[in-house]
Amino acid sequence: MSIITLTTDFGLKDHFVGSIKGKIISESPGAQIIDISHDIDVFNISEASYVINATYKNFPKGTVHLIGVDSERNAETRHIAMQWNDHFFVCADNGILSILTQKIKPQKIVEINIHDRLPTYSTDIDAFVTVANHLAKGGALSVVGKEINSIKELSELKPSVAADFSSIKGYVIYIDHFGNCITNIPQSLFKEVGKNREFEIKCGTKSIKKIHATYSDFTVREGYTLRDYEGEKLALFNEAGFLEIAIYKSNPKTTGTAKSLLGLKYRDMVSVYFK
Amino acid sequence: MSIITLTTDFGLKDHFVGSIKGKIISESPGAQIIDISHDIDVFNISEASYVINATYKNFPKGTVHLIGVDSERNAETRHIAMQWNDHFFVCADNGILSILTQKIKPQKIVEINIHDRLPTYSTDIDAFVTVANHLAKGGALSVVGKEINSIKELSELKPSVAADFSSIKGYVIYIDHFGNCITNIPQSLFKEVGKNREFEIKCGTKSIKKIHATYSDFTVREGYTLRDYEGEKLALFNEAGFLEIAIYKSNPKTTGTAKSLLGLKYRDMVSVYFK
Amino acid sequence: MSIITLTTDFGLKDHFVGSIKGKIISESPGAQIIDISHDIDVFNISEASYVINATYKNFPKGTVHLIGVDSERNAETRHIAMQWNDHFFVCADNGILSILTQKIKPQKIVEINIHDRLPTYSTDIDAFVTVANHLAKGGALSVVGKEINSIKELSELKPSVAADFSSIKGYVIYIDHFGNCITNIPQSLFKEVGKNREFEIKCGTKSIKKIHATYSDFTVREGYTLRDYEGEKLALFNEAGFLEIAIYKSNPKTTGTAKSLLGLKYRDMVSVYFK
Repeated sequence: MSIITLTTDFGLKDHFVGSIKGKIISESPGAQIIDISHDIDVFNISEASYVINATYKNFPKGTVHLIGVDSERNAETRHIAMQWNDHFFVCADNGILSILTQKIKPQKIVEINIHDRLPTYSTDIDAFVTVANHLAKGGALSVVGKEINSIKELSELKPSVAADFSSIKGYVIYIDHFGNCITNIPQSLFKEVGKNREFEIKCGTKSIKKIHATYSDFTVREGYTLRDYEGEKLALFNEAGFLEIAIYKSNPKTTGTAKSLLGLKYRDMVSVYFK
Repeated sequence: MSIITLTTDFGLKDHFVGSIKGKIISESPGAQIIDISHDIDVFNISEASYVINATYKNFPKGTVHLIGVDSERNAETRHIAMQWNDHFFVCADNGILSILTQKIKPQKIVEINIHDRLPTYSTDIDAFVTVANHLAKGGALSVVGKEINSIKELSELKPSVAADFSSIKGYVIYIDHFGNCITNIPQSLFKEVGKNREFEIKCGTKSIKKIHATYSDFTVREGYTLRDYEGEKLALFNEAGFLEIAIYKSNPKTTGTAKSLLGLKYRDMVSVYFK
Repeated sequence: MSIITLTTDFGLKDHFVGSIKGKIISESPGAQIIDISHDIDVFNISEASYVINATYKNFPKGTVHLIGVDSERNAETRHIAMQWNDHFFVCADNGILSILTQKIKPQKIVEINIHDRLPTYSTDIDAFVTVANHLAKGGALSVVGKEINSIKELSELKPSVAADFSSIKGYVIYIDHFGNCITNIPQSLFKEVGKNREFEIKCGTKSIKKIHATYSDFTVREGYTLRDYEGEKLALFNEAGFLEIAIYKSNPKTTGTAKSLLGLKYRDMVSVYFK
């Protein structure tokens, strides 16, 4: 059974997402289509990048991930398909996949070249759907494109390390549904630079000196219960492996969130100072 | 074929829901996954409770309902799985299921105890997914937990009856997409206490003296059409069996809603006075 | 394998959509259910009409399209099922389908008459689900209804042409997720009336004198890149075949949209003047 995931900035009100699914099952009856997100901020490739990196690992090998964000093919941007870590990714070459290729070398990348073979008036997404269907059926990459060796890098997703290894500077790349703020600082970099030193995380107007193991990892004082810790700020490495500034029982309507309580916004700096 | 439903407060923007689905189909290829809601107000167990009670009956027996709302396992809250009315429910023991057990005795409840057997860094939801997959494949509850006899009660979902049976006091537990306000007063209680007496429902600044059979159950006067009744308030017992205060052709953008026209809010009191 | 699509104004927070799916798979295990939209503006049949017309063609013949918008059956409105262009549509006779029947003659229409055969307390949607399941299994229309010859027309979806063929007056019938404004002027009418004459499209405070082939169909000047054209207004015929007023890289949060930049709103007039 073939699995195709969808990540787009199309929203759910319009018919766009339903139409993609219709096109997929017209060609691949019985394909299992899984929505990752259709609420990526429009044209926000760094959000798409974060989301696809955080989710791919939960799918079986061989899954095809179609990413419809900033997907226009034009003089400056080509369409690509990539086999990486035994998963397939189909999208525009706009930097979305560099978060993956920075970690592990791709198995194969092709520049999609089937556009001339599609019916007139086919859209960018039609090309993606055709390629995704082909790959989901076990088709070869070489049939839908010409091999290439490199893809566009998205440099803004990289944190920076001080020359003397005294600090890491990153920033908020994603704010989730609970208002928790995810930075671009991976756990691996934190360990490598920190080497078990003490540290202070500066985020917004506050600082944090501990990494929690879970959202509720509090030493509950005598006479207190966990409820008394609702609204407490904390830092942890999330399931995706990135440093996250969170609030215990974060709630945009009541308790408040890292966004509202610490004044953190998308692209705000978060720094770690080691001692 | 196994069916797993999902009810969470995770929202649809993030990758969380897609990731759960990836984890499910990795273990149970071909499982049919149905979204109930991912827009439960964050940590709102009374909303989750209303929604799950309103929807389970539309699914075949044997369906597994995974509820990811306030699902953290900690010193004060355990994870449970329950067989009830030939359906399965997997969630935290935070009161969500008491709306069901107050009506019908559960067939079996277990405290989930597989956490030590999961990979390191597994989340609360990972535990739910593992249990849901096990149950969807026909596995026994006893394999994933230790039998328990009772679960946490959510008392706030219970309406109160006057000592002399002259009235029922309930409140708004859910406001739906159309702005209709659903109370915690079940039809069965209304009948039992009312015994066909005349009544007056006090809601917000208004009162209603009739229960409608449907949203459009109006006696259309000579020379009028149903359109002339748009915006009329009414009370009915909804598909879930609860007293609902509604507006005919309720529309948040134009006509107005029970919320806007009658000033009703979440948790506001709605009372029924019998004569 | 049978395919059923869903288009409703039920929203995604409540249990309504999940419940419909439960009812469908209870009767048709293995049916493939595809969401088109659940965020149609409440009771907005013209939006539903636009969406269903734009999407049906992406599905295989034999697909059943269930439309739960303004679906109440009452003295003034009946329930219908229609076979058209080898697709099936199930909805209330409120005008939604006239956008289709204006283009191609239906194969067969029936007034659904199974309501008396349904369990007590069945809802309007229950009737639709029963009919959709029946059709998805290859059942005949004549089993679920009595043949009729015409359906309600939705006149507001029709643009008007000046008596001397000097202009077409239409209006904005849909604003999509990107803020692009879709009019009710079809490409076929534009060609038929225009006969290759020069033209000027008046929309909001601006006018446009060219039809673009794609969103990025700009003649990029020497020394410029496509990025320099972000925020440019343009007109094109979209995938659904209607005149659309758009902004290149339209973004409600940054660049702006046809809605924000040109001051276009739902139902605003858009006219084409030929020379």
